[in-house]
Amino acid sequence: MTTNVSKGLAQAVLRGDRRALSRAITLVESRRSEDRDCAEAVLSEVLPNAGSSLRIGLTGVPGVGKSTLIESLGNLALSRGHRVAVLSVDPSSVVGGGSILADKTRMVTLARKPEAFVRPSPAAGRSGGVAPATREAVYLCEAAGFDFIIVETVGVGQTELQVASMTDIFVLLLQPTAGDELQGIKRGVMELVDLVVVNKCDGDLAALGQRTAAEFQQALRLVPAHTVGWTVPVIAVSALLDEGIDDMLITIERFEKGVRGSGQLDRRRHVQAREWMWQEVRECLVERFLEDASTQLRARQLEEAVAAGSLSGMAGARKLLDHSSDSS
Amino acid sequence: MTTNVSKGLAQAVLRGDRRALSRAITLVESRRSEDRDCAEAVLSEVLPNAGSSLRIGLTGVPGVGKSTLIESLGNLALSRGHRVAVLSVDPSSVVGGGSILADKTRMVTLARKPEAFVRPSPAAGRSGGVAPATREAVYLCEAAGFDFIIVETVGVGQTELQVASMTDIFVLLLQPTAGDELQGIKRGVMELVDLVVVNKCDGDLAALGQRTAAEFQQALRLVPAHTVGWTVPVIAVSALLDEGIDDMLITIERFEKGVRGSGQLDRRRHVQAREWMWQEVRECLVERFLEDASTQLRARQLEEAVAAGSLSGMAGARKLLDHSSDSS
Repeated sequence: MTTNVSKGLAQAVLRGDRRALSRAITLVESRRSEDRDCAEAVLSEVLPNAGSSLRIGLTGVPGVGKSTLIESLGNLALSRGHRVAVLSVDPSSVVGGGSILADKTRMVTLARKPEAFVRPSPAAGRSGGVAPATREAVYLCEAAGFDFIIVETVGVGQTELQVASMTDIFVLLLQPTAGDELQGIKRGVMELVDLVVVNKCDGDLAALGQRTAAEFQQALRLVPAHTVGWTVPVIAVSALLDEGIDDMLITIERFEKGVRGSGQLDRRRHVQAREWMWQEVRECLVERFLEDASTQLRARQLEEAVAAGSLSGMAGARKLLDHSSDSS
Repeated sequence: MTTNVSKGLAQAVLRGDRRALSRAITLVESRRSEDRDCAEAVLSEVLPNAGSSLRIGLTGVPGVGKSTLIESLGNLALSRGHRVAVLSVDPSSVVGGGSILADKTRMVTLARKPEAFVRPSPAAGRSGGVAPATREAVYLCEAAGFDFIIVETVGVGQTELQVASMTDIFVLLLQPTAGDELQGIKRGVMELVDLVVVNKCDGDLAALGQRTAAEFQQALRLVPAHTVGWTVPVIAVSALLDEGIDDMLITIERFEKGVRGSGQLDRRRHVQAREWMWQEVRECLVERFLEDASTQLRARQLEEAVAAGSLSGMAGARKLLDHSSDSS
């Protein structure tokens, strides 16, 4: 029964049926065990047809103009024959809560187009970051024929690093700002970036925006390259006026051509997929290990002793592992 | 018997006996189970007396002048009444291989002083990085009365990040260089740095060194602060001529005063110790999980399927965990 349902759903996704795609994404987001089984069945059906898109990670603080930019970039990509999917990772959202109204009202012109698909993706994963469901939603969108997939996040907590670990190109969106501000860029983000876009370079902010772009270009010289053979460009744009967006798209296409040609895109995806699997394994092993209440209690005691400096971390770990072996 | 040996050794370490300290460090570096038991007994004896030093992480590429700088800084610290220990993490060294000749011939004037202790520390830990032994060696040095502990690394692989995770202040050593070079700074390092020192600012390189310092100061504005309330200073020095080293020491002392006063030093150490314990637990759990040959084989198969894109990372993890439950 489940097999028929999942086969039918998988076929509909592969035909590009948007309602089926939505339903499949809801399944991969579900935590119910029977949904999970069905989701995995759907995924294993469609996975051979996934993988041919460009996955674009996009991050920026609230107010930087992400939605406007994605609308502008997305519509331009559509006009060039791409099919565009946008997965918005909102760290404040919850799994199973359905769609988020605030997100539905964003990117309206894009969301209405038949060649586009806009969907909020819950972030409440096991460790409060991007749910593994987002990675699987990317595959589902690809199977449904979307070849230009934008995964956007406001970058609270670890979401930026996680979005970078599931995309091919990572774009940092900034706004014009006076020199000393960090614009909420968090640890580790600069070194994952493949492209910096300074938005709102229009009107009174145009000159400041150019200066911001030049400063970042300068600073990036001291950051190790995320992608071999690629010098991170900084582009000044105005999403509001649709200025510079073509430059941004051309740059993204140039990046794609380079990393596909060199094999880096495939290698990055292989590494990402392997790391994803092992991360899941590690998290599950720790969860299982801590299922036992007495192990939990012992862990808390040892953690305190280690933090207080009366026990070394290695000794604490050994005692905890011994405790668990003894009690099992 | 072991108890008597370890008690005696612990007492000798606490008296500041350097040969006992060396022996204790050799014990924590050993992988033999009986040595490990003895090491943990010694550690639990001395740990209440550890923790009162300042732990200084220092990194820089080969040829940047680390040894000369440590000699100069160490001798200055000695002259101010500190007792100085230097643990040199050499990623190319091996546990149990004894001391490294090349290191013994470095820092000669410092190594000869009775208030100083210089020791190479093997880096071949479980995952090829800094051995957990180095963390324990820090505790042993503290217990022996050393209050100024420098953990230096050439920063191959992950060693820099690991050294940062076991020290209170992290110092990046650079040399004068023309703008576009990265000086081998690796991913994540800039954001862990509390102090940048440009060495070899003497003779022909003096002007270039000042320019390098100014450029890094500029670039650091765009890097999130490692330590709250502390703007990372960039200091130009010449270890060869002993110029600027007093400035460096004063800056380190100013940092220490700040983070001790604000409680950040203690908080950082608590977090580091907890993370250390959990990292050990995680690594051991994965090791145990993979002890079974059939699980290893299955892991390799699933890893390939995941990398090839025919299985999602989550499904791969689930299948691997199920396999292990079935076969146990």
